[in-house]
Amino acid sequence: MDIRLDFTNMMAAAIGEKYGITDEELRKLVPRTEQIHQDLMARRERGELPFYDLPFDREMVDEIVPLAEDLAGRFENVVVLGIGGSALGTVALANALGPFHHNQLSREKRGGRPRLYVLDNVDPAGFGAALDLLEPAQTVFLVISKSGSTVETMCQFMIAREWVEQSVGESFRDHFVLITDPESGGLRQLARSQRYRNCPIPPGVGGRFTAFTAVSLLPLATAGIDIQRVLRGAAKMSERVTRPELMENPAYLNAALQFLAYGKGLTISVMMPYSDRLKDLADWFRQLWAESLGKKHSLSGNLVHVGPTPVKALGTTDQHSQVQLYMEGPWDKTVTFLIPDDFGADLKIPPMEGASGLSYLEGRSMGELITSEQRATSVALTKNGRSNCTISFPAVTAESVGALIYLFEVQTLFAGGLFEVNPLDQPGVEEGKEFTYALMGRAGFEHKKEEFDRWYHQLVKRVL
Amino acid sequence: MDIRLDFTNMMAAAIGEKYGITDEELRKLVPRTEQIHQDLMARRERGELPFYDLPFDREMVDEIVPLAEDLAGRFENVVVLGIGGSALGTVALANALGPFHHNQLSREKRGGRPRLYVLDNVDPAGFGAALDLLEPAQTVFLVISKSGSTVETMCQFMIAREWVEQSVGESFRDHFVLITDPESGGLRQLARSQRYRNCPIPPGVGGRFTAFTAVSLLPLATAGIDIQRVLRGAAKMSERVTRPELMENPAYLNAALQFLAYGKGLTISVMMPYSDRLKDLADWFRQLWAESLGKKHSLSGNLVHVGPTPVKALGTTDQHSQVQLYMEGPWDKTVTFLIPDDFGADLKIPPMEGASGLSYLEGRSMGELITSEQRATSVALTKNGRSNCTISFPAVTAESVGALIYLFEVQTLFAGGLFEVNPLDQPGVEEGKEFTYALMGRAGFEHKKEEFDRWYHQLVKRVL
Repeated sequence: MDIRLDFTNMMAAAIGEKYGITDEELRKLVPRTEQIHQDLMARRERGELPFYDLPFDREMVDEIVPLAEDLAGRFENVVVLGIGGSALGTVALANALGPFHHNQLSREKRGGRPRLYVLDNVDPAGFGAALDLLEPAQTVFLVISKSGSTVETMCQFMIAREWVEQSVGESFRDHFVLITDPESGGLRQLARSQRYRNCPIPPGVGGRFTAFTAVSLLPLATAGIDIQRVLRGAAKMSERVTRPELMENPAYLNAALQFLAYGKGLTISVMMPYSDRLKDLADWFRQLWAESLGKKHSLSGNLVHVGPTPVKALGTTDQHSQVQLYMEGPWDKTVTFLIPDDFGADLKIPPMEGASGLSYLEGRSMGELITSEQRATSVALTKNGRSNCTISFPAVTAESVGALIYLFEVQTLFAGGLFEVNPLDQPGVEEGKEFTYALMGRAGFEHKKEEFDRWYHQLVKRVL
Repeated sequence: MDIRLDFTNMMAAAIGEKYGITDEELRKLVPRTEQIHQDLMARRERGELPFYDLPFDREMVDEIVPLAEDLAGRFENVVVLGIGGSALGTVALANALGPFHHNQLSREKRGGRPRLYVLDNVDPAGFGAALDLLEPAQTVFLVISKSGSTVETMCQFMIAREWVEQSVGESFRDHFVLITDPESGGLRQLARSQRYRNCPIPPGVGGRFTAFTAVSLLPLATAGIDIQRVLRGAAKMSERVTRPELMENPAYLNAALQFLAYGKGLTISVMMPYSDRLKDLADWFRQLWAESLGKKHSLSGNLVHVGPTPVKALGTTDQHSQVQLYMEGPWDKTVTFLIPDDFGADLKIPPMEGASGLSYLEGRSMGELITSEQRATSVALTKNGRSNCTISFPAVTAESVGALIYLFEVQTLFAGGLFEVNPLDQPGVEEGKEFTYALMGRAGFEHKKEEFDRWYHQLVKRVL
């Protein structure tokens, strides 16, 4: 596991002074880096940033692994009911590390492990179709909500619980594991009063920082992912990303590069893995980066309306969709490529009769092609003065993905310091939740219903 | 099929003068609208914009349907080898209109139709894993490339061809259908010299406008989608989107709204369907909007570096990932919601013992919840002064999705006129292609290899 951050093409020496970063600009961030670092370490010391220590939590692993083995032995299907941080880490890690097309394989080809479904929406057609795929008797649901009141997840739970009970009767409880706050909230109350099996989410670990808790580790372990290797990768990365020096800490350095690029108007941050296995990692990162840094108020209470917009792309696929814009459009983006040195498999390109214009491909491999395309795209962007960097690593392994996740989490926390916002809250989503409660008739939200009506019904409608 | 564009919340009356649009601003676009309209109609008349007429092409349907039926009868798996415009329309339409989890269902539950795979990348691990799923004897590959030289697709084809031949011998040709230009290019040559079955892509229809050609219609028809209903929806929409008046043509109006929002600094255009079925439509649109409008030069040759950045989001899921940023971050976005009135199915939310805080959900339905959340999010954005509009329609049907695609295609073409760029080219991707050829050792690109080396090897590397 040797993760390299190549930021050559974000620097002024490669792409010019206007959008490129100078060493002087990086140097100027050194005092702030020291402050933020000390602040983070002090808060970690005081137990306010427990996510830092998750990779070292043996007790957690000792609780999760036997539960996962038990579930894997008894069920054909593991279904996560969760949304946002309760779903994205699991999807990213499962697709990175499990067999491709896991759910389409025979149990034998799945290594004897259950299928894994992550249901993170409340489209009734989609949710119903997922239930139609499943045998209730062979299915266990992991109901995941930190607060224990996430309306989408609770709605799914209520429907799934009845659906299981109608099939298996009184033993329906065996088909649910509740993953939630250890003390408070609706799911915790239910776990107690109705005696559901349950797992805690460590207090102080916010939704988007839960990839190394039972939130993701229980479903992953049940599906056969080696979570101890994932945590080992994260633990090893923790050594690098807790170094105090900006130029020796890849999390701090990458945050600083992104922050400086943002200051130059490159407010869109594209994450573009060249790897089918990593395509959903960009979705996980999208939540982390957007919710943590997209803020109205600074830490000192000023109105700032700040925040880079993370965008997901996939190489080579999106070369045929987005790269035209990245190459020629406005100077508002920086692209981060992710690529393994080795794809874990390769395919030789054989000759083909009658295909004379393609002889240059013969004898080369698909792995060479995708690697060449990433380099070609990076150089073409650079030649056009477009900011880009490349994160590479030997292979997509449990260790390397664990390390990447830990790297990005620390990067985000540190970026909060640079942008001077609180990376751990998300006050902007409350209003929408309250309007939803009002529309669903929840007691106590009548005033929001009136307010909703003012905006929804009293504006002159413009419709074509 | 009654598609409504509600743009109330993009207007100044709802969100204020700074980021909202005034009627005066729309009125000012009327003369330009007339010009662009006349230009489009004249070019259509001259046969330069054949995509307009695709929904009325009976001959094309009469060629595709019997071929699709033949393939469906003989094969278990249909595999599209294609990338960009050769893949995105098929994925969007198949997921919108086919059964959920199509490939996981028994042949009977698939209505007797084959499975459908779209392979649009050259990750050797991903491609190899897809082949591992398939029986060569039961698989047909649709090799799709307009130019006939798309390197990713040709590489896939060469590998797949050998893989089939090794299993079935001389009859391997029966397992391939080539979809390409009717006259020129490498695939056309191959179809002729090696006698592969083939389908034409009508000349003059660019890659990202091929959803209504064999590119998408053949795989879709083979998988059991009623392509005639899709085309009927598009044909019906064509009546609305060829009207000359800005305020009566939803394609022109939506393009104008997006253009005006862009001019106010809202350069990111989020498409956020609230529907699992429509989640990939946003990916299809992303290509259409980005490649068509992201341009360095204007039509008159000026350096403009223009182009909105399309972003994909999914409701309700991304409320828990992106909405914090949309609500509180920089004023740089406008959001387009897509939502059906009816999800085609609904699920009642039953009571749950011990869940006292959730009684407000009991007796309501999941469909009410997702609909309420979309409205709540829209109103919360509006209250925060954030631009958004809602496109709604009775249900996700073949007709409505066909109509939406046609609407967005005309919208994009018209937007090209407003942005004063050529929406039909993509000159910015050539450089990357040439560097790839150079790295893969293609004759004639030696000079690009030297240039690549200068950028890749001669810059001082900055790596941590």
